[in-house]
Amino acid sequence: MTVAGKRAVAEADVVLADHLGPFHLAEEAAREGAELIDVSKLPYGKQVSQDKINELIVSHASQGKHVVRLKGGDPFIFGRGFEEAEACAQAGIPYTVIPGVTSATSAPALAGLSLTHRGLVHEVTIISGHLPPGHPKSLVRWDVVAQMRGSLVLIMAVKNAPAIAAELIRCGRSPQVAVAAIESASTPQQRVSHTTLGTLASDGGA
Amino acid sequence: MTVAGKRAVAEADVVLADHLGPFHLAEEAAREGAELIDVSKLPYGKQVSQDKINELIVSHASQGKHVVRLKGGDPFIFGRGFEEAEACAQAGIPYTVIPGVTSATSAPALAGLSLTHRGLVHEVTIISGHLPPGHPKSLVRWDVVAQMRGSLVLIMAVKNAPAIAAELIRCGRSPQVAVAAIESASTPQQRVSHTTLGTLASDGGA
Repeated sequence: MTVAGKRAVAEADVVLADHLGPFHLAEEAAREGAELIDVSKLPYGKQVSQDKINELIVSHASQGKHVVRLKGGDPFIFGRGFEEAEACAQAGIPYTVIPGVTSATSAPALAGLSLTHRGLVHEVTIISGHLPPGHPKSLVRWDVVAQMRGSLVLIMAVKNAPAIAAELIRCGRSPQVAVAAIESASTPQQRVSHTTLGTLASDGGA
Repeated sequence: MTVAGKRAVAEADVVLADHLGPFHLAEEAAREGAELIDVSKLPYGKQVSQDKINELIVSHASQGKHVVRLKGGDPFIFGRGFEEAEACAQAGIPYTVIPGVTSATSAPALAGLSLTHRGLVHEVTIISGHLPPGHPKSLVRWDVVAQMRGSLVLIMAVKNAPAIAAELIRCGRSPQVAVAAIESASTPQQRVSHTTLGTLASDGGA
């Protein structure tokens, strides 16, 4: 959590947090009397839940309350923060965005992996792996990704990692490429496994 | 700055910071009696300076002191943090890495730009623009980058942005692609200019 984020929570009348963002950090940082809402406990399905969160932010702010939405990671890196910002903008509610530390960069760092190294890597690509290659809604050209020369970070890819690895190999990446799989980053349960693209791909058939 | 970073500085005997990292934050957070070293004032050239920083970290730590190296942004995203970590490892000095907020994601967020948006963008590529396309030491395949479908963040690219834009267009990207140029992000001097890839490319000939 950033110093700026903690200060914002401490100044809020209402704090909305969820299980992705550390709810206990919100509890620690909030001032006495502030209202804390655990939006992961809203009785709605996934899509509707985002609408409900937007609505809660806007309705509390419309009452003149100082509202803080605490998110895990960075709100604008696969964090849906822009949807909440848009809801505020549409309702005429002024807002500011406080950047956070995205897991896309912090998880490798905590695992001792540098995504860039002077003279070796000049680029990093961060891709959401929530859709498998070939999925009609996928916006990723994996054949192009396979030709990139820098580090590749897949997030939300637990399920699709083997299929993605297989596709990258099919498009020309070497099966010998080193892969680190990081689970539960930054928690006491953090686990780092080292493998190769080829082994990861064959896990899909296991 | 993160809460964890601030806490680390507060517990240090020796803090090394530079003009890239906010030296005044180190001054604020350090405890009474801690030694603060502004490594940007070392009387050396650029390359030697990194060696000298590594040496200072190792020599102070070897004396049993608790050393903190405070860097701007994230130490492992084009931050040369890994070189300092390697120097510690080689000297047998235990260390931990505290991730920070990289300007590659925070500068766009502070400018109101989301690098990812649900259903529109599933990927972000961060590239160091310190070398122009075609430079013998460049590790970037700009022809491949031009075919990527997500957001592209160029850092350290003030000088080479027009040449990079021209190369991306030559490789097939539309001159109509929207570009935001962000200067002095997060400071009171922050300035955001909106343009297109085509206009940026032609700036190179101006």
